[in-house]
Amino acid sequence: MYRPEIKVLDCTIRDGGLINKWQFSDELVRETYKAVCDAGVDYMEIGYKASADMFDPKEYGKWRFCKEEDVRQVLEGLELKAKLACMVDIGRVREEDILPVEESIFDMIRVACYVKDVDKGISLANQIMDKGYEVTLNLMAVSTNMEKDIDEALKQIAATEIPYIYLVDSFGSLYCEDITFLAKKYIDALPGKTIGIHCHNNCQLAFGNTVQAIIEGVNILDASVYGIGRGAGNCNLELLVGFLKNPKYHLRPVLKLIEKYFIPLRKEIEWGYIIPMMVTGMLNEHPRTAIAVRSTPDRDKFAEFYDKITLQEIVE
Amino acid sequence: MYRPEIKVLDCTIRDGGLINKWQFSDELVRETYKAVCDAGVDYMEIGYKASADMFDPKEYGKWRFCKEEDVRQVLEGLELKAKLACMVDIGRVREEDILPVEESIFDMIRVACYVKDVDKGISLANQIMDKGYEVTLNLMAVSTNMEKDIDEALKQIAATEIPYIYLVDSFGSLYCEDITFLAKKYIDALPGKTIGIHCHNNCQLAFGNTVQAIIEGVNILDASVYGIGRGAGNCNLELLVGFLKNPKYHLRPVLKLIEKYFIPLRKEIEWGYIIPMMVTGMLNEHPRTAIAVRSTPDRDKFAEFYDKITLQEIVE
Repeated sequence: MYRPEIKVLDCTIRDGGLINKWQFSDELVRETYKAVCDAGVDYMEIGYKASADMFDPKEYGKWRFCKEEDVRQVLEGLELKAKLACMVDIGRVREEDILPVEESIFDMIRVACYVKDVDKGISLANQIMDKGYEVTLNLMAVSTNMEKDIDEALKQIAATEIPYIYLVDSFGSLYCEDITFLAKKYIDALPGKTIGIHCHNNCQLAFGNTVQAIIEGVNILDASVYGIGRGAGNCNLELLVGFLKNPKYHLRPVLKLIEKYFIPLRKEIEWGYIIPMMVTGMLNEHPRTAIAVRSTPDRDKFAEFYDKITLQEIVE
Repeated sequence: MYRPEIKVLDCTIRDGGLINKWQFSDELVRETYKAVCDAGVDYMEIGYKASADMFDPKEYGKWRFCKEEDVRQVLEGLELKAKLACMVDIGRVREEDILPVEESIFDMIRVACYVKDVDKGISLANQIMDKGYEVTLNLMAVSTNMEKDIDEALKQIAATEIPYIYLVDSFGSLYCEDITFLAKKYIDALPGKTIGIHCHNNCQLAFGNTVQAIIEGVNILDASVYGIGRGAGNCNLELLVGFLKNPKYHLRPVLKLIEKYFIPLRKEIEWGYIIPMMVTGMLNEHPRTAIAVRSTPDRDKFAEFYDKITLQEIVE
């Protein structure tokens, strides 16, 4: 699949950090950035930007905060071939935490919000655009929204200058026809803007759905190394880079990185196709119950988990 | 997705046996059959039928041969709700090994062949139909064939009475647009016949491609418990049963079976998303090199494996 407009964004550290509170070694982060650059990937999202007083730095690693000096120190001496991005949640970052782009190592800031908070999301995105960054607005969990509310949010977004809008399958519950339906909706409602896709892999559809989104005209694609990310994880970067036909993308650096860092890491923390995560995905629910059961002795009691979660649903 | 014509075929033991030479315990096979029945699955393919003198019974388990008395013994006392199927390879079974259907526990026999051997496949399928069985012809590895050869094979098959023809992605190298292209081709070329799909999961597309095939009108779907199968394995039965909307299908029995038998089994033998299998899938190659490297000390040297296999390809 070759279309020169297509860009890939690696979210390994940002989304993967949701598993381990961003407690990655500096070495792993630096090597990931190097591999991402060598693979020809366009952006790397290296964490969340948050105010230091909102999270305990003893509990959370530095990629929860993305302080400029931390990023510069870890990437010191490297050519910054991949643009750097970070994510902000509304209400968890203050305007003064965000430098003007000329003083920052970051090129892009991504604003994550729910449809119900789209006004707050637009407001924060506007502030960040005023500081000169490339900005994305990532509308999370739209699989749980009524269509009229999505349409209203898109109408509001259409009236802004925000250049990138993401379709996000937060619960990994969408399949190809849903992606087609939503991607067409976003593209039609947002002329002149670039649509992005961020998929979760609960039902082993993250890569397939990303391909479907490409077919529909989505042009910025999230993926992570070996699929790392909360719960079932994301679209695997190695699959995406192997699939895209643009000769600027290279698979080998990602394979080498997986071999050296992500196979050992996967033995310490878990993500990927795990039955309770599949069940929440199939039921279009947040993976929190699935993640919770995995840290109990009942981690592999799949039928019991399924009974609990479906019984719960019957209660009106 | 609801279409009353859709049928599901479980190939857990047959395709899974390619990993461990069909050395499954009787208990696992019996419990799998029970779960498959409880899940509402239409067919279970329990192994290959082969002549006993062609394979060493010391090396190969009983599901390599599928002797009638073995099948009857393992399933003794069970209501045979799911129809029983077995697979035959051309040249590895003699006509006298196949009883008339009235004397057999099997309802369906599936003939696997390559496009180049389609005449032999049709001949064997005709012999089996004459004995009264439901018969499928599974055209393997069509991702490696020239279109003119596929077209010619389909034309020959169209002139037969064989009711089921399978589109088989042997190497797990196809993506949704390929499935659409081939499924349309099969359906157009074979009016009045039922088209089936059998996918491999090298690029995490087995389930997504099966869904794509459903959309295109394919009506018999192969899947296996927890995706077990050679190399990267197959479409996961639990994903398919969870996805299909026909109320006759039930997810819970499959989850219980995975929990009790397939999580422990996965610790003994491997299948699923494993990088060397992904590489062969992406390159449209047989997984044999990937499977081979996994039993060496270099099992996780992914970049080296990639170098070897791509260098190999440059040689004309």
